[in-house]
Amino acid sequence: MESGDGALSATSLDESITSFFTSAPPLKESDNLRERVMEFVELNSTIAAAGDGGHRKVVCVTSGGTTVPLEQRCVRYIDNFSSGHRGATSAEYFVKAGYAVVFLHRRGTIMPYTRSLPEDPLLECLELDGDSSIRGLIEFLSLITHTSPHLPQAVAGNLLLKLPFTTIFEYLQMLQIIAKAMKPLGPLAMFYLAAAVSDFYVPWQTMAEHKIQSASGPLDMRLVQVPKMLAILRKEWAPLAFCISFKLETDSKILLEKADMALRKYKMHMVIANELLTRKEEVTVVTVDGKIPVYRDKSQPDSDVEQPLTELIRNKHSTYIKNTNR
Amino acid sequence: MESGDGALSATSLDESITSFFTSAPPLKESDNLRERVMEFVELNSTIAAAGDGGHRKVVCVTSGGTTVPLEQRCVRYIDNFSSGHRGATSAEYFVKAGYAVVFLHRRGTIMPYTRSLPEDPLLECLELDGDSSIRGLIEFLSLITHTSPHLPQAVAGNLLLKLPFTTIFEYLQMLQIIAKAMKPLGPLAMFYLAAAVSDFYVPWQTMAEHKIQSASGPLDMRLVQVPKMLAILRKEWAPLAFCISFKLETDSKILLEKADMALRKYKMHMVIANELLTRKEEVTVVTVDGKIPVYRDKSQPDSDVEQPLTELIRNKHSTYIKNTNR
Repeated sequence: MESGDGALSATSLDESITSFFTSAPPLKESDNLRERVMEFVELNSTIAAAGDGGHRKVVCVTSGGTTVPLEQRCVRYIDNFSSGHRGATSAEYFVKAGYAVVFLHRRGTIMPYTRSLPEDPLLECLELDGDSSIRGLIEFLSLITHTSPHLPQAVAGNLLLKLPFTTIFEYLQMLQIIAKAMKPLGPLAMFYLAAAVSDFYVPWQTMAEHKIQSASGPLDMRLVQVPKMLAILRKEWAPLAFCISFKLETDSKILLEKADMALRKYKMHMVIANELLTRKEEVTVVTVDGKIPVYRDKSQPDSDVEQPLTELIRNKHSTYIKNTNR
Repeated sequence: MESGDGALSATSLDESITSFFTSAPPLKESDNLRERVMEFVELNSTIAAAGDGGHRKVVCVTSGGTTVPLEQRCVRYIDNFSSGHRGATSAEYFVKAGYAVVFLHRRGTIMPYTRSLPEDPLLECLELDGDSSIRGLIEFLSLITHTSPHLPQAVAGNLLLKLPFTTIFEYLQMLQIIAKAMKPLGPLAMFYLAAAVSDFYVPWQTMAEHKIQSASGPLDMRLVQVPKMLAILRKEWAPLAFCISFKLETDSKILLEKADMALRKYKMHMVIANELLTRKEEVTVVTVDGKIPVYRDKSQPDSDVEQPLTELIRNKHSTYIKNTNR
């Protein structure tokens, strides 16, 4: 039953969530995943850190787009465009700021610490002749370690757990496992949900088993809405975690209104509103206390909007931890 | 007007092709692309080669899947799964056999000569500590140049032209430009169409400009068929070229029948029939003279089905050149 603003009642939301998970193909190696995340959370939560209750904070950064299979033996699928740049860049800043990062990312998208590399770095290097190609590559490697001084810290310090997904089914099942494993952290846990999650899906059971045949005229498809998991993440999976979601639109006219609606409907602590064309220059942080525009520092050629954004978030998260523990 | 077997009459095929191209967003830098391809073809066609009419043969290998945008400012799209492994591997064998290769590939899929690398080679290497990471990488590079002795030949000899696409609109416009540039080669030209091309698309003009909103219930979509360009490739773009298309199905029961239908309907010289689950072990080459199964050499651990397949094709292409020039 839909209420006036399109929100589902609690019962029917529960029903649509149950129906999504029961119809999803079971996640492979889910026990193994659960153990790895719990170990990562436990290891980091026992490490003392300055401020914020004396322990290390853990953030789950989601990144890249989810796919929706259109056939069970998947040949065709609907994809959401997302390079993963926002998530990868933010993950680096969170590590730098002392967070342990669970990086739940679309397989093949941009990864932390290698985002400045060309698309096909090895082939590019190999296209020079023998000797100079290897020299070029070594210079290149020095450049990375120079420009990413926090890479050794992240690797040696066990501060980055990389977990890949492809489909919407994998993504939401993995998010649930991660969230439940992070629940014991209370307010020290944070969710930074930058992944581009599909709004519509084809329930697994109603899906064509074999490749859809093209001989018989136009193709009509009916996709159903993916239930909004943000509500259940806040309510059940990790109720004390600090939650940040993203709203991307191509139409600036409806962007802030939709971000505001998401904030209230899913009880997010922040919604980051961004428009497709300007998303690398500015975003608007929407909170119940108001809207804060965040800009890239245009006086610096290599600057990005993620630096001031993650700094703002870290401060708000610290305040939240203090207020919650009070 | 449809005939009994689902084939379109010539007039309505022409109409659907015209309608596809006029509704497509214009290809960026198409003049530049045309020049590059013509230069590549010209350069290679003037080079003498043993046998086959005394000149170098040129093959256009297509690889990876095309996308179908669902919105003009593209956030969502339908994608066809294809790693690009078949195309990249075959391109290497064609270079080795003396062909110049135009490699029309989906951006981000597997490339010739780097297919044996791990997904994220640089990050994997960087995750070792300082010194040994660089040593590891150099060993890795030596390994590639050792296992791919034809890489320097391909690079130095200008035998590989790499052209990336993403959408179905880009792919078909690029294929048309390439085919027309290769037309003067007559029977020395070959098309090896291994790309997974979308069967359905949303015409650009009827497409939503902005992101489709999810608030208003299920999403109903109507997609129309992509016109079969194989027919016009054979008839107009490059009538004398040797043409090989691929047929992938998940259902083995209908595979050979569909491959046979494609052979006759589009006047291909060969259709390579492959099934999703066994495609790396065996394929069936369908010709008007019969069906030839091709298997990977299972006695060799690193063997692939592309080696015997491309060898068979090279022989058939040579015979075709002789018969055409006779």
